[in-house]
Amino acid sequence: MMNIAVAQSGGPTCAINASLVGVFKEALKESQIDAIFGSVNGIEGIINNHLVDLKTLIRTNDDMELLRQTPSTVLGSCRYKLPEYKEDDTVYKKILKTLEQRQIGAFFYIGGNDSMDTVNKLSEYFRQECVDIKVIGIPKTIDNDLCITDHTPGFGSAAKYVAATMREIVRDSSVYSIPSVTIVEVMGRHAGWLTASSAVLHALGETAPHLIYVPERNFSLDAFLRDVRQEMAKHKAVIVAVSEGIEVPEGVQSGVVDNFGHKYLSGIGKYLEEAVRNEIGCKVRSIELNVMQRCSSHICSKTDIDEAEAIGSAGVSCALNDETGKVMVFRRVNEMPYTVVIETTNAANIANNEKFLPDDFITPSGNNISENALKYFLPLIQGELNIIMEQGLPKHFAIQESVLK
Amino acid sequence: MMNIAVAQSGGPTCAINASLVGVFKEALKESQIDAIFGSVNGIEGIINNHLVDLKTLIRTNDDMELLRQTPSTVLGSCRYKLPEYKEDDTVYKKILKTLEQRQIGAFFYIGGNDSMDTVNKLSEYFRQECVDIKVIGIPKTIDNDLCITDHTPGFGSAAKYVAATMREIVRDSSVYSIPSVTIVEVMGRHAGWLTASSAVLHALGETAPHLIYVPERNFSLDAFLRDVRQEMAKHKAVIVAVSEGIEVPEGVQSGVVDNFGHKYLSGIGKYLEEAVRNEIGCKVRSIELNVMQRCSSHICSKTDIDEAEAIGSAGVSCALNDETGKVMVFRRVNEMPYTVVIETTNAANIANNEKFLPDDFITPSGNNISENALKYFLPLIQGELNIIMEQGLPKHFAIQESVLK
Repeated sequence: MMNIAVAQSGGPTCAINASLVGVFKEALKESQIDAIFGSVNGIEGIINNHLVDLKTLIRTNDDMELLRQTPSTVLGSCRYKLPEYKEDDTVYKKILKTLEQRQIGAFFYIGGNDSMDTVNKLSEYFRQECVDIKVIGIPKTIDNDLCITDHTPGFGSAAKYVAATMREIVRDSSVYSIPSVTIVEVMGRHAGWLTASSAVLHALGETAPHLIYVPERNFSLDAFLRDVRQEMAKHKAVIVAVSEGIEVPEGVQSGVVDNFGHKYLSGIGKYLEEAVRNEIGCKVRSIELNVMQRCSSHICSKTDIDEAEAIGSAGVSCALNDETGKVMVFRRVNEMPYTVVIETTNAANIANNEKFLPDDFITPSGNNISENALKYFLPLIQGELNIIMEQGLPKHFAIQESVLK
Repeated sequence: MMNIAVAQSGGPTCAINASLVGVFKEALKESQIDAIFGSVNGIEGIINNHLVDLKTLIRTNDDMELLRQTPSTVLGSCRYKLPEYKEDDTVYKKILKTLEQRQIGAFFYIGGNDSMDTVNKLSEYFRQECVDIKVIGIPKTIDNDLCITDHTPGFGSAAKYVAATMREIVRDSSVYSIPSVTIVEVMGRHAGWLTASSAVLHALGETAPHLIYVPERNFSLDAFLRDVRQEMAKHKAVIVAVSEGIEVPEGVQSGVVDNFGHKYLSGIGKYLEEAVRNEIGCKVRSIELNVMQRCSSHICSKTDIDEAEAIGSAGVSCALNDETGKVMVFRRVNEMPYTVVIETTNAANIANNEKFLPDDFITPSGNNISENALKYFLPLIQGELNIIMEQGLPKHFAIQESVLK
């Protein structure tokens, strides 16, 4: 018999709690697993011995259904970067102490490429120290920028929100008789996956977005203004999708840097809005989809949520197969009908790496997404959950604040 | 036999097309009504004799169902202010020419208080000129600031979006262990209805929004920072809802003025974000709900959409009862169960007037919404449409761009 622990890390998505449900459900089925601990605020909970007993908090199937439709991380999150253990193993010793004290034989870390760095380092440290604790990574990120895996849990729901909202913005922006430009800023620091996914509207007969700019291509303000003028000659209401991460002159990005050296970006939409106002002089608006694109569970993708749960479950099976230092990944084995299988890869293949849009997803002009990208994106946004409502609003699963303190 | 015309005006909402369906369906039933014309871009379509035959565009019940779930104005909109006819009746003569040429006996104008100004002026002009054309106003606005009526079509869906999104933002903002402030900017130039409606979360056990600022109360930056500090002592993640229309120092509002003298507001959220960053120094984010709060039909309120259709239908009956210069209004006749009846009022009572939050909806401290406001808001956000999907996204009804040109 052994206990296990699970933690959630990095930026919120709609699917992280579904992966937690996957780990939890599978662990319940396994006779060799006893207690299922949740670590509060990612790896910080393990470091500080702040664990909660998930079996006392998630009691019924209804609880699990609610968790599946609850955005963000029910156990809290962190942005904590482990040092190299060869340089400083103080934190590693704390982690080991908690895990041994709680008789934890496997630790599951749901997170993005930073968290997979933790999975990699921790599993290497345990190997080095001959400690038999499995460490398995469950991927998640709305950015879809993890290597090896076909896509990441959380991305499909974010893409569905972005596309559905973009379509509504198309309707909203088309009402007046005067020409207008609407610029929609989408998350994505270095990779344009989420911005590119808005092109699924083209498969539904929409001409918008008329222009799509992703960080994979150099951005020129002059070319942008020329593009906008060209589209204005064809369409009364021009819709532009732009990644927050496109490179524009310095000073636009706020420049605050987090623990991983990431800049908190903002203001690209506003910057382009000002440029259109000053240089073209037409009606113009910019819209930042902001955190809504990562937490709008009310319009999550059922495909995404189901897959997020399945990949969490598969992680437990993987650990029980004596594997460690692995990250669970999707491989798409068939396009039509869309079919994926779950496999594993070494965490080192994913940690700190980024996957960018393939060249052929971007049109030669560099300002739109090509048609053959659509068959990649469309399956990921299919299906809806039957959202459980209360008083007219989606119900959420929540753990009392006092329990998490 | 007579023909009728219907037009949509002002800012988009989720319910304007449902009111169009209401007018259309009711007119189909009435044997004395022949052609049903849609005016393209509000009153501008009448002025320029740009009408479309709605019976050829809306052909099936499925079309009507799609229209009910399509945000914005399928016929386009305008922000056109009629001059006083005593000063200049040129436009009035153009309008009359179109209506007479098309044998239109009744004109239905779906819009906000600016459009009700048009209803008022036009019906007075027709009376003056002894022309028997009825003019009836169908209210709509997410601002909920029309007088006489209990609430306005479009508001319930906007409120449902704001509250559902606010709840998701609460989950999103609560994940890290460090203290944070999240400021959510909600539409509302002078009246705080939509911002106040976010308080429905309190009826669901949420402590957020912890602070709610509406334009009905004077705003002081010092008091705001003191309020935030007090809430930070109680909650790790403080959520603030703020109306775009609260009065802050000059220069924050962009100051562009539309035809009605309205300022296009933006930047209050960013302004307060900067204030918190500079004065308190904690993690802080501002979120502008932007046009999503008026066009997110994917999470519209069924109560709102059904009522919007019903009030459109009632408008047709009103005109056939020989009334003119009237606006259709809701009167709430019972709290529990929530029951409304549809009545009429003179357009002059609504035109150019604004209705503000009652004093007892706002807490004495002026920085939150009182509990007794919740029973007003909650019924308006109840129920969901069975949204028709295509390729994973809500399907929209659209009229070909060429038809509307």
